[in-house]
Amino acid sequence: MGDLTWRKLAPALYNMLLDQQLPERFAVIGLDLKAGSTDEFRQRLRDGANSFCECGEVEEKTWKKFTANLSYISGDFADPATYAALNKQLKANAEKWDCPANHVFYLATPSGIVEIIVKGIGTARLAQDKQRVRIVVEKPFGHSLASAVDLNAVLTAVFDETQIYRIDHYLGKETVQNILAFRFANALFEPIWNRRYIDHVQITVAEQVGVEHRGAYYEHAGALRDMIQNHLVQILTLIAMEPMVSFDADEIRNKKVDVLKAIRPIAKERVQDVAVRGQYGPGSVEDQKVPAYRSEPGVAPASLAETFAAIKLLVDNWRWQDVPFYLRTGKRLPTRASQVTIQFRPVPHQSFPATAAFAWQPNYLIIDIQPQEGISLRFQAKQPGASLHLTPTDMHFSYQETFQSKSPEAYETLLIDVMSGDATLFMRADQRGILISLNANSERVGKFHTGRLPQLPIRHMGTGGCCGLNYERWPELVATARLQGCSGWESSSELNRINE
Amino acid sequence: MGDLTWRKLAPALYNMLLDQQLPERFAVIGLDLKAGSTDEFRQRLRDGANSFCECGEVEEKTWKKFTANLSYISGDFADPATYAALNKQLKANAEKWDCPANHVFYLATPSGIVEIIVKGIGTARLAQDKQRVRIVVEKPFGHSLASAVDLNAVLTAVFDETQIYRIDHYLGKETVQNILAFRFANALFEPIWNRRYIDHVQITVAEQVGVEHRGAYYEHAGALRDMIQNHLVQILTLIAMEPMVSFDADEIRNKKVDVLKAIRPIAKERVQDVAVRGQYGPGSVEDQKVPAYRSEPGVAPASLAETFAAIKLLVDNWRWQDVPFYLRTGKRLPTRASQVTIQFRPVPHQSFPATAAFAWQPNYLIIDIQPQEGISLRFQAKQPGASLHLTPTDMHFSYQETFQSKSPEAYETLLIDVMSGDATLFMRADQRGILISLNANSERVGKFHTGRLPQLPIRHMGTGGCCGLNYERWPELVATARLQGCSGWESSSELNRINE
Repeated sequence: MGDLTWRKLAPALYNMLLDQQLPERFAVIGLDLKAGSTDEFRQRLRDGANSFCECGEVEEKTWKKFTANLSYISGDFADPATYAALNKQLKANAEKWDCPANHVFYLATPSGIVEIIVKGIGTARLAQDKQRVRIVVEKPFGHSLASAVDLNAVLTAVFDETQIYRIDHYLGKETVQNILAFRFANALFEPIWNRRYIDHVQITVAEQVGVEHRGAYYEHAGALRDMIQNHLVQILTLIAMEPMVSFDADEIRNKKVDVLKAIRPIAKERVQDVAVRGQYGPGSVEDQKVPAYRSEPGVAPASLAETFAAIKLLVDNWRWQDVPFYLRTGKRLPTRASQVTIQFRPVPHQSFPATAAFAWQPNYLIIDIQPQEGISLRFQAKQPGASLHLTPTDMHFSYQETFQSKSPEAYETLLIDVMSGDATLFMRADQRGILISLNANSERVGKFHTGRLPQLPIRHMGTGGCCGLNYERWPELVATARLQGCSGWESSSELNRINE
Repeated sequence: MGDLTWRKLAPALYNMLLDQQLPERFAVIGLDLKAGSTDEFRQRLRDGANSFCECGEVEEKTWKKFTANLSYISGDFADPATYAALNKQLKANAEKWDCPANHVFYLATPSGIVEIIVKGIGTARLAQDKQRVRIVVEKPFGHSLASAVDLNAVLTAVFDETQIYRIDHYLGKETVQNILAFRFANALFEPIWNRRYIDHVQITVAEQVGVEHRGAYYEHAGALRDMIQNHLVQILTLIAMEPMVSFDADEIRNKKVDVLKAIRPIAKERVQDVAVRGQYGPGSVEDQKVPAYRSEPGVAPASLAETFAAIKLLVDNWRWQDVPFYLRTGKRLPTRASQVTIQFRPVPHQSFPATAAFAWQPNYLIIDIQPQEGISLRFQAKQPGASLHLTPTDMHFSYQETFQSKSPEAYETLLIDVMSGDATLFMRADQRGILISLNANSERVGKFHTGRLPQLPIRHMGTGGCCGLNYERWPELVATARLQGCSGWESSSELNRINE
């Protein structure tokens, strides 16, 4: 049983029981190649819940109720006998409950074996009830455009699109969902949410940690596949989409796909002007020495996987024409912060005297996703005192302070949605279809010499960022990675969108 | 020496010295009918500074520096000898300093004797240097339109308009000044600051205190003269004015006068539909029994002075057509709060399901002026949890928390402005000209029976208010006054604007 099940699914399932979000009759069946007993499986899940639940150690009484519904099957994913064993168990449950059950196949597996499992499910005819059977597929969805298209073909040969839940746990986070509420439940922001008032948008997911124990996975993924093509592009679609007519899952996903379709294709020869990739060298984080990416466990000594990526996208429609969307993400960056910054244009006419307005800054709205969830509005106020001085100040809203109740973990939210058949927060094939093309093309990279680092255009960049992330430092963030001494710089020279 | 000098001017002057806002060479000359010595005057000022300075007791060393420049003249305001004595003192100072001085006449007196003093100054030829001599006139500026026009004639016979500083200390408060910064130093709000997005504006100055020791004054003033025609209408002009071209005093005052000119005249027969007056009866505030207005010291047992007034105004221009501005003020109200609430229109289309949006509220922006200065934005956020529920929440900015330095007292700000000849925050004759007409006409009131209380139109009123003032309770605020048992209800039946 893998890392994801241990770290995320076990605590999410336990929390769902605590929050009375699990039905009266349920079963969790573990299925893995490894030999093991149901008791070992239960112990492993309990250990995960104990280690990663915010509530601390599990309650004995609740756990007992949970554990009675856990069982384990050991088997080779390529062997039809495995699926026969699974089917037997499912049938036994249905008989015990005296009613048909919904089945969710959660593929918490490396992407390499997804195809084998899906085919196994298909052959065993376990996917046939379109209403009751769903499948959850984790990222990365393939490792290139071709493999993603193939994987999709495999999935759709067995499952209907309505049965397929491509998960991106970022979309389960409260603030990400709240972007929709913020934009469309408030009359205040929509009138200024366009090219006339917005100068540019910055979407940042900065991590302080390195690749940790995930080197083997990361070698095949890199920052573009791991973060940009899924998390950051998903956030972009939420920021840029047109108002939905209703809160229907397909309506929202249609509006998101509209944005993806409007993203301006990047010509091969222009990629160096709008995108950059980097890899962290050795350095120090908060006075602790940390190794280079190439020295991390599971990483090749001459690895070319990028640990930093930034890209400038344009959305060709009436609302966003010529408004840059800057996306960036990386590991071993100076701070941990996931933020969206909407920077507004300057005032059309500065009516305050130069002596009052020397510290003047444009307005911006910062949506914090991690580690603290909240929204800040940067505006100018008069500094107290007899003379007139404008100073940038913040109006702030914090989820934690406002709502004393904790936000549910993203996986909990998403599992509940899968179980109730709400696909709003999951990828649809046509979303993935475009995203993966960014991903796929990043494989074909060209070398360039150290020091010839292509920089992002930063002319419009303002200052700020409430979590200590200074937006004037975009070029520095890139430079930081460079200075940390990696000689294996890569430019994503063929990062372009396939024209459909 | 009166209450204002003791409570407000003494601490303001002392603070100005502390903050190095007083010139090296300065003198404060007290002038009053009462016999008294310079030492008594100094002691009285020191007592005022000790009692009302936020910094606590005065520092001996600083006070010594201050006190050396204080002197006192006792004299009848109608007697030319008084002005001769004053002139002698002014000349002595000029000689001592070996340069001509600026002179500011601050009339911290009852309005009844302003005319006598101004004529005295004129006869003694003390107002002739248009560059160096200024006069500060306190509210109320007359007690009716006719008396205000007369007073203005008296003033302008002796002083140029540029020399006259009609003071409204509300305009010296940080937040009031900050309204201009908020609106015009930020690109974010101006696009939605109009009839297309704003539903209505509420301007409230609610006091918990009664009339206190000011009964004799209040009997002649009432809430309309004391608050509405000056403070609240001034705030209205700041909220409603068009963007200024520059921060020039006359430019800003022109823009404010434009608003006043656009206020829709109220026909006599319509006054009862848009305005209400009330008077507090006996009751209790925070479990303490408090007397009726008519039982307060200095108040006539059958007084008809209003202690509560509310009025709905419309501004007839492109920006504000049909957007109501509700102004209300009163004493002995449930809470103390000075606030401006800008309530925005609902979202044009509710795309969230009814189950999610049942607690939905329109957006509003609350500008707090007292007791805490700050700005809040009420918006809808998603409540944390697996299901989608929109909840109204606040984004908040507090002056006190943001700027650790304290805001200067309003009187300090305004005294500095007078001394440096900056008239931005003072009334000009044409501002007063219109305001006083509201005031003047409120004299002619018609009686109506208890229980036939004309209510303000409240159809568009939302909920909220971050200081415990609930805006759904407009009618209740009126009702509160009524229920406290005053039988002397008055409607301002002829409150209308004179067409110029």
